Amino acid sequence: MLFNYERALKIMDKYNLEALIATSPENVLYLSGYRSLSQWALRGVPVYAIFPRDGEPSLIIPISDLDLYADKPSWIKDVRCYGVFYIEHYEKESLKLSDSEVRLAELMKKVKRGKSALDLLVDVLVEKGLDKKKIGIDEIGIDYNTWLYLKNSLPNAQLKPAFNIFKEIRMIKTSDEVELLRKAAEISQKAVETMLESVREGVSELELAQIVEEVIVKEGGRVFATVIGCGTRSAFPNALPSSYRVKKGDIIRYDGGCTYNDYYSDIAKTAVLGEASEKIKKYFKAIAIGTEEALNAIKPGIKASEVFRIAVEAVRKNGIPHYKRHHCGHGIGIECYDKPIIRPTDETVLEPGMVINIETPYYEIGLGGLQVEVTILVTESGYELLTPKTFDRELLIV
Amino acid sequence: MLFNYERALKIMDKYNLEALIATSPENVLYLSGYRSLSQWALRGVPVYAIFPRDGEPSLIIPISDLDLYADKPSWIKDVRCYGVFYIEHYEKESLKLSDSEVRLAELMKKVKRGKSALDLLVDVLVEKGLDKKKIGIDEIGIDYNTWLYLKNSLPNAQLKPAFNIFKEIRMIKTSDEVELLRKAAEISQKAVETMLESVREGVSELELAQIVEEVIVKEGGRVFATVIGCGTRSAFPNALPSSYRVKKGDIIRYDGGCTYNDYYSDIAKTAVLGEASEKIKKYFKAIAIGTEEALNAIKPGIKASEVFRIAVEAVRKNGIPHYKRHHCGHGIGIECYDKPIIRPTDETVLEPGMVINIETPYYEIGLGGLQVEVTILVTESGYELLTPKTFDRELLIV
Repeated sequence: MLFNYERALKIMDKYNLEALIATSPENVLYLSGYRSLSQWALRGVPVYAIFPRDGEPSLIIPISDLDLYADKPSWIKDVRCYGVFYIEHYEKESLKLSDSEVRLAELMKKVKRGKSALDLLVDVLVEKGLDKKKIGIDEIGIDYNTWLYLKNSLPNAQLKPAFNIFKEIRMIKTSDEVELLRKAAEISQKAVETMLESVREGVSELELAQIVEEVIVKEGGRVFATVIGCGTRSAFPNALPSSYRVKKGDIIRYDGGCTYNDYYSDIAKTAVLGEASEKIKKYFKAIAIGTEEALNAIKPGIKASEVFRIAVEAVRKNGIPHYKRHHCGHGIGIECYDKPIIRPTDETVLEPGMVINIETPYYEIGLGGLQVEVTILVTESGYELLTPKTFDRELLIV
Repeated sequence: MLFNYERALKIMDKYNLEALIATSPENVLYLSGYRSLSQWALRGVPVYAIFPRDGEPSLIIPISDLDLYADKPSWIKDVRCYGVFYIEHYEKESLKLSDSEVRLAELMKKVKRGKSALDLLVDVLVEKGLDKKKIGIDEIGIDYNTWLYLKNSLPNAQLKPAFNIFKEIRMIKTSDEVELLRKAAEISQKAVETMLESVREGVSELELAQIVEEVIVKEGGRVFATVIGCGTRSAFPNALPSSYRVKKGDIIRYDGGCTYNDYYSDIAKTAVLGEASEKIKKYFKAIAIGTEEALNAIKPGIKASEVFRIAVEAVRKNGIPHYKRHHCGHGIGIECYDKPIIRPTDETVLEPGMVINIETPYYEIGLGGLQVEVTILVTESGYELLTPKTFDRELLIV
């Protein structure tokens, strides 16, 4: 299960919430395991997952996506539908239907239906007696008028924005989530390594990006961002691959990754074609030590802000005295940035089960960009790298 | 330019709007040509494009994504930034910086900065005297508290939800948009044709999906959905590719597509391995004639609802008398469903420049699903197919 059930109850108690409602695609998928294709493909398609502190959870979906529920049922058994959709049923005794087909045929006949997603949501909340309770609603998936409608329809309920509460729950990954994140990291690692093997004079950033993206898809992932900057273009933090062609001595900086079953990887690597300048070698060493010292510090009990300070200080002491950075990493999960953020203001105490990216990038216009970014799982005794290999302590020469 | 400037002014006049504010990723990209990687990769990152009826437009972005603006400038020249990000500048006289690097260095020094995206937005609106005017805000990209903050900060402004107003503007595509949509359609067409060439007994839905996705990426697209249902599984409208292996006589139904520079394609094709049953042949002919007659009806002046009625009637008269459907197509653009929708309640009159998908799918549990879906551009005299070939009048046998 993606959903960290026990932790959800704990966090709900912390905020005195009697129910949680997921509305954005990631939180609905996380809570229910159900993925509405319409909600992921189109803006503004309502899908709601309702998780009461006590009692049965519910799922509200467009009837056009009911087949996805029938084909791969959610742990949430109470499903209700809105909208119009037609599927006929070939009723012939000799036909042997699969389990999914039987479920779909039955659901099409018997599923509870309502006029709109919002009406169904109000019904569910009233039915469960939650209309007089404190409820957390993921505010990112609904607009002003939807929130207003809920407020007016449930005058005795107390509605609390819960996008960040979901992020707090999601901070500790379940074992199923860790496996998806591990697989995503492995795919990206393979993609970037294959790409680096193909670097030679005259190859363009676009050609290198193409290699990365083809490996990702071959390995079963989906591309979410491919940042490749070569030469001084590597100083562009979000470098869009261009027609720029690699020359001897150029930096090649990759950042980005893929999703695997909607779970993210985000890794970075830096290499140089041929001989690197002394300044580049010195600066790379500084940022590599920054990342390494941050990794060495990771164990349950340390604060995110402390890891940040250790990372920045190590970069400053080891070759870039003027180093400045707003964060040195971030949680990663069903969103590319999960909690905690490794920054000076994040006082989150690390716990086993967190999956975190560590990075100490450096960008200098006229020189280039230098970066290693790795994904780790916080364990009882320290950490485990989810990117399959150790990270690069030395600047890669290709 | 993606943005239909002239049409935007016309639609703003229709609703008496003095300004439009884009907040969701698609509308910001559409209006400005600027694509914030953070906004596309993470939920809830604010980016705003402000387009006043009179006066200069503005763009509010996170400073971490300023390099993307410097590398590929928007037609909107007034850019303002929030957040914290560090990029150093290697100032050495002998260095020759590229235009993008010079722009980035200058912007990092001189760009207008504010505490938050929302504060900057209020500033811009007050500065331009729009705080006493009627303003359309794309409500999909902001939550309840953001809307409330704007309402309270601009007590004399009249705020109107504008997600659908953006869709109304986007209904008539610019020539740049048509070229992106044509390219996206061509990529998907190539992908599905390559996949169909590989169908043989024993191949799995997952293997077929893999072929589609690899071709899409090779051709420069990104996968957004791959629906492949074989045998009776083709009756699942959103069939997730599974380990099911194709048998003789099976239907193979593909639906889905790709994005190309964020513009969508969505096509469908149906084939049978070996010999199709009489029922399948008869039903396919009915839905193919439905799509064909809808296409024959397309010309400027006809209503979307009329196209719908023609399509459904043709399917009913030609082999599926019980045919029922909620829509027979939809506009397509920077979102997979744009306006108009080919449905009974949509009275939109078709105009040249609209890009529309036409489809008359049929799903029957125990039998399967049958579908052709094509993309057309409405022209002065009728329509032009953007999918490169004519659609399939006959059931494909592979």
